[in-house]
Amino acid sequence: MEALGVHVLVECRNCNPAKLNDLQFVRETLLAAAEDLGVTILGEKFHHFSPQGVTGVVAISESHFSIHTWPEYGYAAVDVFTCGTSFHPRKAAEFILKRLEAKDSEITEIKRGFIPVAAVR
Amino acid sequence: MEALGVHVLVECRNCNPAKLNDLQFVRETLLAAAEDLGVTILGEKFHHFSPQGVTGVVAISESHFSIHTWPEYGYAAVDVFTCGTSFHPRKAAEFILKRLEAKDSEITEIKRGFIPVAAVR
Repeated sequence: MEALGVHVLVECRNCNPAKLNDLQFVRETLLAAAEDLGVTILGEKFHHFSPQGVTGVVAISESHFSIHTWPEYGYAAVDVFTCGTSFHPRKAAEFILKRLEAKDSEITEIKRGFIPVAAVR
Repeated sequence: MEALGVHVLVECRNCNPAKLNDLQFVRETLLAAAEDLGVTILGEKFHHFSPQGVTGVVAISESHFSIHTWPEYGYAAVDVFTCGTSFHPRKAAEFILKRLEAKDSEITEIKRGFIPVAAVR
């Protein structure tokens, strides 16, 4: 069995609240992570909530990136989902954690789309 | 401990390949699922690949929906992530599975953002 994609779920805790609430900073962080990973960006949508919090999704040829922040809790939920075997989504996760100054984190890696090997190769 | 959000990961297998490859159908499916759930759509990006496959992300006030399809394998990876306690992302997952005519599926529910109860209430 071969997986079509790798989905990395990142719990970003004890982050810098000001950075979590900065739309432009959050957007630049995700786009820089995507660029660093070498994926192709198809489109994006970022939004700042009142009074606080940012949400963002980035569609990439190889699946997607997403972020939802709660500055009041110093927390962000980040997803990095890539398909194919040439990308390392965990690298993007670590880049984002560093930018958000997360002092505590949890990375869960989930294989998506198990297909018989004969059908993939 | 209280979770800020519920993230539902859906493995959609043995789907109707023609529907998985139909950009408009896939887009309408996700938007209808979001509308049915009562969430607020902020923006969306859908893309059809050559020769086949569709990818889509929908940013909602309550987090996001995403889909990535592989018609050649009858497979789609779907995510429904909602925050707050008034939504039932599993309901949206079941709606999408039915629309894609999935004959086999797996739904994984993951709680995101565990915060001390005192801080949430």
